[in-house]
Amino acid sequence: MLKVCRRSTFNAAHRLYRPDWSEEKNDAVYGKCNNPNFHGHNYTLEVWVEGEIDASTGYLIDLKILKTIIQTEIIDRFDHRNLNLDCSEFANLIPTAENIAIVIYEILRNVLDAKYKVSITLWETENNSVFYDGK
Amino acid sequence: MLKVCRRSTFNAAHRLYRPDWSEEKNDAVYGKCNNPNFHGHNYTLEVWVEGEIDASTGYLIDLKILKTIIQTEIIDRFDHRNLNLDCSEFANLIPTAENIAIVIYEILRNVLDAKYKVSITLWETENNSVFYDGK
Amino acid sequence: MLKVCRRSTFNAAHRLYRPDWSEEKNDAVYGKCNNPNFHGHNYTLEVWVEGEIDASTGYLIDLKILKTIIQTEIIDRFDHRNLNLDCSEFANLIPTAENIAIVIYEILRNVLDAKYKVSITLWETENNSVFYDGK
Amino acid sequence: MLKVCRRSTFNAAHRLYRPDWSEEKNDAVYGKCNNPNFHGHNYTLEVWVEGEIDASTGYLIDLKILKTIIQTEIIDRFDHRNLNLDCSEFANLIPTAENIAIVIYEILRNVLDAKYKVSITLWETENNSVFYDGK
Amino acid sequence: MLKVCRRSTFNAAHRLYRPDWSEEKNDAVYGKCNNPNFHGHNYTLEVWVEGEIDASTGYLIDLKILKTIIQTEIIDRFDHRNLNLDCSEFANLIPTAENIAIVIYEILRNVLDAKYKVSITLWETENNSVFYDGK
Amino acid sequence: MLKVCRRSTFNAAHRLYRPDWSEEKNDAVYGKCNNPNFHGHNYTLEVWVEGEIDASTGYLIDLKILKTIIQTEIIDRFDHRNLNLDCSEFANLIPTAENIAIVIYEILRNVLDAKYKVSITLWETENNSVFYDGK
Repeated sequence: MLKVCRRSTFNAAHRLYRPDWSEEKNDAVYGKCNNPNFHGHNYTLEVWVEGEIDASTGYLIDLKILKTIIQTEIIDRFDHRNLNLDCSEFANLIPTAENIAIVIYEILRNVLDAKYKVSITLWETENNSVFYDGK
Repeated sequence: MLKVCRRSTFNAAHRLYRPDWSEEKNDAVYGKCNNPNFHGHNYTLEVWVEGEIDASTGYLIDLKILKTIIQTEIIDRFDHRNLNLDCSEFANLIPTAENIAIVIYEILRNVLDAKYKVSITLWETENNSVFYDGK
Repeated sequence: MLKVCRRSTFNAAHRLYRPDWSEEKNDAVYGKCNNPNFHGHNYTLEVWVEGEIDASTGYLIDLKILKTIIQTEIIDRFDHRNLNLDCSEFANLIPTAENIAIVIYEILRNVLDAKYKVSITLWETENNSVFYDGK
Repeated sequence: MLKVCRRSTFNAAHRLYRPDWSEEKNDAVYGKCNNPNFHGHNYTLEVWVEGEIDASTGYLIDLKILKTIIQTEIIDRFDHRNLNLDCSEFANLIPTAENIAIVIYEILRNVLDAKYKVSITLWETENNSVFYDGK
Repeated sequence: MLKVCRRSTFNAAHRLYRPDWSEEKNDAVYGKCNNPNFHGHNYTLEVWVEGEIDASTGYLIDLKILKTIIQTEIIDRFDHRNLNLDCSEFANLIPTAENIAIVIYEILRNVLDAKYKVSITLWETENNSVFYDGK
Repeated sequence: MLKVCRRSTFNAAHRLYRPDWSEEKNDAVYGKCNNPNFHGHNYTLEVWVEGEIDASTGYLIDLKILKTIIQTEIIDRFDHRNLNLDCSEFANLIPTAENIAIVIYEILRNVLDAKYKVSITLWETENNSVFYDGK
């Protein structure tokens, strides 16, 4: 198994709450993450792509191309955004780290060649992260 | 010169803009940091305290006490907050990293014993930071 | 597969030696880790929990709860301790990084819901680590 | 599953190009990595060894021995070298991170006891890495 | 004193040797850094700019502008280059970390407004670095 | 001002207490750092040496020589030791991070040429550190 990784970062605001829950329940479940005025993070994203090496180039995938895909599909979409208000992906989905990771995975899974396996790790803080590989 | 440092982190949302400027000028100066719906960061704060060693304890300052002061005065105040909307310190002050650093310095300078010199480094991202020592 | 991770640290002293071995054999196997007066480390622990996302909350597991479990079960038990002298888990078990990792895994495995898979990575120094998932 | 990891670093120069390709094709595929005068990196290598714990020592593998093997077989071979010109492994193999990782894996696989599984992660920069486990 | 920092990286090859010294003397002084085929590093550069805050913008200096200056003047000049062969700055200057730091400082000092004080820290590896402020 | 830095690490056990104080006072001042069976840390040491560049070599100080001095004078002395029991420097000195930093500074100050200025930063954990330059 050969995998390559590209690491990048984006900065976003978000809030964890459900409009169909009472204020009390939102506070009980989401605590200070339920600040109505939002808070934010520097998200660190590792995208891992698994596949065969291309004997002709010595690349599994050209990391310049992977970098451009991540920039266009993920960073340009989420960087310096409010995930709740600016991003349609989270119009009806709570932007927990878990859901952000799943959304990012799905976006990249759709644009990357089906011959690759894809997995991502998303760090929300230096102490909290999520891994997802679509299985 | 002997200095001790305590490092901590907080997560906040902010927006850079001046209400007395046109939208065009705000965009020209602040770019994507002028998203009206805010974005956010994991801020990393290093607080440095300079002074004489206490020969009795071997401490310059008890870092447990410094940690509590930083928690009470800075983290509880700014963590999981929207700096523009939730924090009176920035009601009339643009929350650039520079201004956040100065505000944090002034708060800590007021509560720490005058016998100490104080300086701080505030990292807004892994690539951007500010140092301030009140001079 | 969805996994979340919580990272934390603790500081402990330990010594690697077997009382049923000669001094020579202990030195040959454990080298300077067999200092009779102990040495110590800042241990960094990553706890990974794998499972299904809770569609209601958007959490796999509430990381605030996971953080509290790690604090209560691991940090309070091992932080600022001598693993050999203070911790019954190592009364008859050599506190190598491997054994510490297995002990931590077993403790967490017992308190975390059986619906989760658990794995841990324990860094003893910035250059040495252990991964264990109970298999 | 129990795995231990040893992390180390080496610094090397390299160039990505194929002598059987035109200059234009080399530039198109390898971009600035095709500088005829070479560029270089600080490579960070994580070697993971998987196996059973030795109940007698509490070690999976003695990390002092693993460190010596990595030093002798990998660091002494590649550190402060030009991978293209100084290292026979790359006489006919383009030293992409993928190929370097595979070469390192094969060297270590040959010298480590067959009872162990081996995998490596090689970071070429803080943003780019490769994982390989021989499968 | 208020200072802001921008961190960036570049990758380059280099060799330490003096053509007017014997091979023996070059080896004695520069050791394995005197590999005739070069080796390389991921250099990490911190540029610190000191000055007054602009009360109008809340910036000391617009970090987007500083980032562009560093990209144009330093990264585009040295990234993926052989410092000895490709860079006229080192035609007659040994590219030690000290000299690279001084060269970078001088370039930035010339393009940054004289009202600022400038200092840089250049990390050649995770264990070696140089600080220079022109004094 | 030109300064070079060499970073290194050592692992040690220690305990903070004064034998001339009551148990209650030791607990009040030193808290869990007063565990009679010791605890420990991975200490990270940055040694900064300031001086003039040697125009002949392009070095301020040969970092290979500085590395050897740090290894011989500091790492061999303190690594895998109990600072209280094994190290005469702390026979009558409480091994707080402040005192360890001062001791390390004094040792290095004595062996490094008087033409250099010396300063050190010692990290006891990723969140706590001390700076000392002898003034």
